[in-house]
Amino acid sequence: MDVVTLGETMVLFTPKSSGLMRYAGDFSTKIAGAESNVAIGLARLGKQVGWISRLGNDEFGERIRNFIRGEGVDVSQVTVDDTAATGLYFKEKLTPGELRLNYYRQGSAASRMAAADIDEAYIAGANFLHVTGITPALSEQCYETVLTAIQYAKRNGVTVVFDPNLRRKLWSEERARKVLQELSAQADIVLPGIDEAEFIFGKATPEILAENFYNNGANKVILKLGKQGAYYLSAESSGFVKGFPVEQVVDPVGAGDGFAAGCLSGIVDGLALPEIVRRGNAVGAMVTMVDGDVEGLPEINRLNYFMNKIEREDVER
Amino acid sequence: MDVVTLGETMVLFTPKSSGLMRYAGDFSTKIAGAESNVAIGLARLGKQVGWISRLGNDEFGERIRNFIRGEGVDVSQVTVDDTAATGLYFKEKLTPGELRLNYYRQGSAASRMAAADIDEAYIAGANFLHVTGITPALSEQCYETVLTAIQYAKRNGVTVVFDPNLRRKLWSEERARKVLQELSAQADIVLPGIDEAEFIFGKATPEILAENFYNNGANKVILKLGKQGAYYLSAESSGFVKGFPVEQVVDPVGAGDGFAAGCLSGIVDGLALPEIVRRGNAVGAMVTMVDGDVEGLPEINRLNYFMNKIEREDVER
Amino acid sequence: MDVVTLGETMVLFTPKSSGLMRYAGDFSTKIAGAESNVAIGLARLGKQVGWISRLGNDEFGERIRNFIRGEGVDVSQVTVDDTAATGLYFKEKLTPGELRLNYYRQGSAASRMAAADIDEAYIAGANFLHVTGITPALSEQCYETVLTAIQYAKRNGVTVVFDPNLRRKLWSEERARKVLQELSAQADIVLPGIDEAEFIFGKATPEILAENFYNNGANKVILKLGKQGAYYLSAESSGFVKGFPVEQVVDPVGAGDGFAAGCLSGIVDGLALPEIVRRGNAVGAMVTMVDGDVEGLPEINRLNYFMNKIEREDVER
Amino acid sequence: MDVVTLGETMVLFTPKSSGLMRYAGDFSTKIAGAESNVAIGLARLGKQVGWISRLGNDEFGERIRNFIRGEGVDVSQVTVDDTAATGLYFKEKLTPGELRLNYYRQGSAASRMAAADIDEAYIAGANFLHVTGITPALSEQCYETVLTAIQYAKRNGVTVVFDPNLRRKLWSEERARKVLQELSAQADIVLPGIDEAEFIFGKATPEILAENFYNNGANKVILKLGKQGAYYLSAESSGFVKGFPVEQVVDPVGAGDGFAAGCLSGIVDGLALPEIVRRGNAVGAMVTMVDGDVEGLPEINRLNYFMNKIEREDVER
Amino acid sequence: MDVVTLGETMVLFTPKSSGLMRYAGDFSTKIAGAESNVAIGLARLGKQVGWISRLGNDEFGERIRNFIRGEGVDVSQVTVDDTAATGLYFKEKLTPGELRLNYYRQGSAASRMAAADIDEAYIAGANFLHVTGITPALSEQCYETVLTAIQYAKRNGVTVVFDPNLRRKLWSEERARKVLQELSAQADIVLPGIDEAEFIFGKATPEILAENFYNNGANKVILKLGKQGAYYLSAESSGFVKGFPVEQVVDPVGAGDGFAAGCLSGIVDGLALPEIVRRGNAVGAMVTMVDGDVEGLPEINRLNYFMNKIEREDVER
Amino acid sequence: MDVVTLGETMVLFTPKSSGLMRYAGDFSTKIAGAESNVAIGLARLGKQVGWISRLGNDEFGERIRNFIRGEGVDVSQVTVDDTAATGLYFKEKLTPGELRLNYYRQGSAASRMAAADIDEAYIAGANFLHVTGITPALSEQCYETVLTAIQYAKRNGVTVVFDPNLRRKLWSEERARKVLQELSAQADIVLPGIDEAEFIFGKATPEILAENFYNNGANKVILKLGKQGAYYLSAESSGFVKGFPVEQVVDPVGAGDGFAAGCLSGIVDGLALPEIVRRGNAVGAMVTMVDGDVEGLPEINRLNYFMNKIEREDVER
Repeated sequence: MDVVTLGETMVLFTPKSSGLMRYAGDFSTKIAGAESNVAIGLARLGKQVGWISRLGNDEFGERIRNFIRGEGVDVSQVTVDDTAATGLYFKEKLTPGELRLNYYRQGSAASRMAAADIDEAYIAGANFLHVTGITPALSEQCYETVLTAIQYAKRNGVTVVFDPNLRRKLWSEERARKVLQELSAQADIVLPGIDEAEFIFGKATPEILAENFYNNGANKVILKLGKQGAYYLSAESSGFVKGFPVEQVVDPVGAGDGFAAGCLSGIVDGLALPEIVRRGNAVGAMVTMVDGDVEGLPEINRLNYFMNKIEREDVER
Repeated sequence: MDVVTLGETMVLFTPKSSGLMRYAGDFSTKIAGAESNVAIGLARLGKQVGWISRLGNDEFGERIRNFIRGEGVDVSQVTVDDTAATGLYFKEKLTPGELRLNYYRQGSAASRMAAADIDEAYIAGANFLHVTGITPALSEQCYETVLTAIQYAKRNGVTVVFDPNLRRKLWSEERARKVLQELSAQADIVLPGIDEAEFIFGKATPEILAENFYNNGANKVILKLGKQGAYYLSAESSGFVKGFPVEQVVDPVGAGDGFAAGCLSGIVDGLALPEIVRRGNAVGAMVTMVDGDVEGLPEINRLNYFMNKIEREDVER
Repeated sequence: MDVVTLGETMVLFTPKSSGLMRYAGDFSTKIAGAESNVAIGLARLGKQVGWISRLGNDEFGERIRNFIRGEGVDVSQVTVDDTAATGLYFKEKLTPGELRLNYYRQGSAASRMAAADIDEAYIAGANFLHVTGITPALSEQCYETVLTAIQYAKRNGVTVVFDPNLRRKLWSEERARKVLQELSAQADIVLPGIDEAEFIFGKATPEILAENFYNNGANKVILKLGKQGAYYLSAESSGFVKGFPVEQVVDPVGAGDGFAAGCLSGIVDGLALPEIVRRGNAVGAMVTMVDGDVEGLPEINRLNYFMNKIEREDVER
Repeated sequence: MDVVTLGETMVLFTPKSSGLMRYAGDFSTKIAGAESNVAIGLARLGKQVGWISRLGNDEFGERIRNFIRGEGVDVSQVTVDDTAATGLYFKEKLTPGELRLNYYRQGSAASRMAAADIDEAYIAGANFLHVTGITPALSEQCYETVLTAIQYAKRNGVTVVFDPNLRRKLWSEERARKVLQELSAQADIVLPGIDEAEFIFGKATPEILAENFYNNGANKVILKLGKQGAYYLSAESSGFVKGFPVEQVVDPVGAGDGFAAGCLSGIVDGLALPEIVRRGNAVGAMVTMVDGDVEGLPEINRLNYFMNKIEREDVER
Repeated sequence: MDVVTLGETMVLFTPKSSGLMRYAGDFSTKIAGAESNVAIGLARLGKQVGWISRLGNDEFGERIRNFIRGEGVDVSQVTVDDTAATGLYFKEKLTPGELRLNYYRQGSAASRMAAADIDEAYIAGANFLHVTGITPALSEQCYETVLTAIQYAKRNGVTVVFDPNLRRKLWSEERARKVLQELSAQADIVLPGIDEAEFIFGKATPEILAENFYNNGANKVILKLGKQGAYYLSAESSGFVKGFPVEQVVDPVGAGDGFAAGCLSGIVDGLALPEIVRRGNAVGAMVTMVDGDVEGLPEINRLNYFMNKIEREDVER
Repeated sequence: MDVVTLGETMVLFTPKSSGLMRYAGDFSTKIAGAESNVAIGLARLGKQVGWISRLGNDEFGERIRNFIRGEGVDVSQVTVDDTAATGLYFKEKLTPGELRLNYYRQGSAASRMAAADIDEAYIAGANFLHVTGITPALSEQCYETVLTAIQYAKRNGVTVVFDPNLRRKLWSEERARKVLQELSAQADIVLPGIDEAEFIFGKATPEILAENFYNNGANKVILKLGKQGAYYLSAESSGFVKGFPVEQVVDPVGAGDGFAAGCLSGIVDGLALPEIVRRGNAVGAMVTMVDGDVEGLPEINRLNYFMNKIEREDVER
């Protein structure tokens, strides 16, 4: 297995009409979850990925498992909880460019993940463990589950990748800052956004923020700078990598997960850091041009077309 | 005010395709709640009705309030809870004639209703108080809220109408039996279904079950017998009233609430008990011929057409 | 040209959900008009048909003309009125088996048809003129237009076919009775329903009602008896023809027009009266099994399959 | 009551596909009417509003009344007309940025409003009466109804607010100019657009046009200048207020009504004229970013966020 | 692996409106294929299943693979063909109870399956090989592929199950009869329908037809008799098993595949022949009550509820 | 007849959601074909047009014929092929501005058009014959059909108009270049795009490329330059004509066909070459502002509004 990841996935309801959701009669559904987005992104790029989670014993849980399994992600470690429901999430398009998210995830099945759910052998069989700052915010039990997974990774030589993914609604600022800093310290590779970096270490330049993460314990830091691209820092090198231009942002949600999938696929492929970041930028950009969190994740040939601006015969522009 | 009622209303999601909900891509939404169904049914029949509840400070709460207010029901006693969400409910059509219901209502805003939400003057201003056995099952606090409302009704000469509305998923059998019996005892008028009556008093004939309720404290008992119609019992009279034939049941959910609305409207109009029951049967039947809980509730002229089988000029059959 | 017909066609709006139309958020549209239904039915059975009408100078008019022309009906005699709109009509499915129709056709373009719209040479070029009792109910001018068309037919040896198609909402009972009787008298062939026959001549048996029409001036009378089939009467013969069984009525509207199209196609083909009626029964039955007025009109091979219960290889039951 | 308004509301049909409406198979529906748009805008901003109108005795009338009542607007003065239908209106999106509107409102229930519909006590109980130039264009009777309402307002010290809302299709240029000028003269506050001002007084600068209205009788003139914002003039002050930038116009219809609602809410709140205009600009801008006439009308907290560009925690951009 | 199956799967387009498909503006899509239906049915009942096929290198191929993999079926043996497209199929609902199927499968990727696609080790690793009479009808190459698979099964002790699944459109009667007879002879277990049995062996009683198959080489014969149920015959026993009553058939397509899945699951579980058949009857019945080929396939607990008519608490009837 | 054209038309399926088509559950359908697009464009501009083609004996064939006939195009020369299906085509919106087209047209009914389908008298009765480079790419037989049609045109004095419409997927580069050059040589008027011109004659300036076509045999060359407009060349004159600005491209497909329809209508009307080209530019631009190939084709008054930027009263911007 190339990468194992761990986290909550929900059914995502999107009103068919924009504006205040009170007027929405019809909704369409997708599935969404930061970590499964990354897993699907990696699978689509040809990597072997596993996703650990807990689902409710309900139709929404079946849907999520089937969808992720259908994408070629290993779901053998997913458990089913008879006592709690699968989480839901509503994405309200208030105006073009203004989204409001509402969650029904409190006490969800995934929030009941436990350290005992983690099979050390499964973690040990992977080259990378990917975790985010969402899971520890779900519950104390989830926090411990993440720590356990990291511990298993470390003692089996599995590289730990951490994406802070700050969710202010889920916990207090104080607790969030403390845990995100703690997990950043334990990770080998960190993928923070500039806002998240400032939340943890205070306002500063990308160079200084990256150094903060480095000094805090990470070997490789890739700092996302939005449309500007990203800044990377390792023992060997550092630098800025420009983002790809996007004609029209259709749906920004999932861009960070696409970035993570792009970077991780590059890391798995053993690319140089600037090439890793460039791939992250490309996948992140591609995700924003399609509605949904995972629908825009590219296969390797579409990614190459996009990165190299190769004109394709089968596409009419 | 003719009637005041009290209870939780949720946004109802219905998959656009039948079968296992895991395959449902699109959902349409309505609103549903036993007590607001009754309130809307009464308003449509020209009665003055008020509905007491608590909603989340969210778009779903706005939708519910606007819809019920739009139907002409007074919503001045509805409170908004900043700390809890409006409840949701999913209606899965497994096969023709087999529905499965899933709730996201645990810890909902309505489950946080409190005795202090009830304004005694508001209750006192009504002729009837309608409550159901769903509300006390939501939370301890809700149970006390119902008791408080009944207490206010009793000391202000307001007639109490109780519909058991057994929801097995919400509480234990033991607790349900105890509370439903207690509330039946406090009510002047009870509207149980035959299954509910047997749940409370054990298997018996309609006559004996009705007598059980009567002996338990109710003045008027109207026992629903499904397609067969209903049996009524009061100090003055008793008897069976046949149901109306229904060509095709489109959606059975809400039939009991329609029955309650029909009966209550007859009670408000001072009809004789057999006429009251006949109206209940008719409204209940009409509700089942339309999709949704409230969409089939009739206005008085449609009800009369239906009850009297008058051919209408504006309808093509 | 085999048949020329004359009348109003409207855009038909159907709510996507059943029940009271106030709750309908979405509507789908079709086109509908008794006479164009007949014209399309005939064209589908391979006959040469022309349709005379007036449309508003608007998108709905364009839609109607294109649809009917697309079906292979000649629309060269259709005029466009810059001063009035194309009529609309709403079909509300109250319950299974109960439809309510609402019209926005007052002062419509078609209600402004005028005698001058009728080209005598066009009528003369046909073998049959088909008119209904709807057109004279639209306006005084429309009444005169129908009379003019009949006059042109008569003096050019064109057989006149009349379908009463009583629409109570459009005119007074008295006026309706007078005009339907007048037009029945002028027609060579009449296709009344039993209700319409009783409306004109009073309650009686099918045999007597048919004789009434015959004595009133028609050569051939085909009296529709609903599911029972039809009764026919001419100088040569008379008798009952049983209807075809229909597994499930999906939409009854348009059945009478299908019946007319079936009969007329048989008349054009020179069939014997019982065969003509049998074809009318079959087309009428087929129309009721499909949603929409014209969507169920069969081509000749599907009609033959249906009439002869031939098992088809390309259909899975 | 803070504000009473008066006018026609219709059911609005929007094709689900853009381009020529002849190709539109599906339509979605909303409700729309300049004056009820203003009423809903004010109710959403927390004001007490009443709406006077006449509706057909049909499902579309029920829908309109329920929707507006649901929004918290008082509809106790709405009458139902058994002899005329509720008006309809079709909004065709020809291309991005090009809308074509088609009405079925001739002889509608609302066009039959009469002076006798207006209850002087109801007008007297309000602080403001809002009328537009659409109502007098509907019929002579409607024109007199507006005059009557204004007369009642004036003799009861109720401030009259007039929005010209020129609809060229509904009346002749000459008549329109005469009546709009007459009503502008009777109003205390006028809210014309620059095009309407030029239509009434001839081409001129905003300053001169505003002065024309002022000299014509209004105390306060707020002249809408489209994207540029607005110009205001009163005895005390005058000036330009810049509009708010709009990222993407989704649906421009209803912007003027939003502007009126914003201004009126500011007037009710006793703000200074520049602040009143700024609020009008903001609400007008917000309405254009959402599909539908009323769906984008903000509640006070969303309005404040927008006006002050406060970043909200619950929104993801 | 319990069962391996082999065959073509297509994307299934269903018009959103019934009647002639020429009027259908909108289509919804599912996936369908006799053998993958069986595979999914088995997976849902908890069995280990593999599906061998060939897909086009296109989005429809991706969709099919993801869906089937998502259901828990092993797709490791599916190949992708760069030179041919994935097949499509259109299901036209002419009237209630009358379906017409149209295929775009000529020269499809699956029709290019080749004997070399079959990995003997993969077949050898299963307990059962399931094949149908559709695959040999697709192309000569497909015919040989099936023969090869059967040969591998036989020499590795894998039981061969054959479902004739006659498709008249795909080949000549003569060729069909010859090949179906040949494959029936090679199979250990055959699952013909009564019509198919008569097609192969001529009109006869179920008992005689079953004997024909038995004498032809099969050990176990299960003969489907539609609503009547099925007749079974083996060396040890024979008999009729009654079908389950179905309240309303929503979509009959896929019933035979459900029957096969039910029987096969019983065979895998080592049930007695009458119990095997009863399970086939039950799954077949359940499939017809839901739209789509696979959407009604039950999980084991739903199957048990259905077979034992156990009332479930979570379902409202 | 003004113009006769000849070619394949398909049913066009468009996913209702953008992104990879594997996730599309719902599709809407239209019809599309380069030559019928031109025919419809001409009919809408008031010209007499005929369209020659072959359709499958299926519902999709019926739909195409009805739609095109409905637009007022003569379809009397369309033949029906019992042995082949009507072609389909899928338009996948990958991202805003990136379309991918997938065809199911191999062996389609239209690809079986034959020289014998062409009625010399029909061609002789037209003033112009329009052909494109798509038809000869469908099959050898189609290539000969085009040659036959051209031959009939030439010997009957009918002007031949040729639009190269290069489709790389349908044939080899070599063959395509050879045939397009051959047909360009036979045409009186050619309408190539700049890319197509370079494909045939090699990279060069518009002036040189136009001259190449002229020297190759065409009298009039109109070279499309995308947004820049077009360059024209004849014996009498040459020059550039600027394109019309387009606010937002909704769907670029069909623009070239709109251009051809615009030019041809100008040619039929005997306009000067710059005016002809200007009309082509205008129609091409208008087509891109509406979804679908033919839905944006203008009637003459809308075209005039657009070309002259006349403000219309009935449109709200």
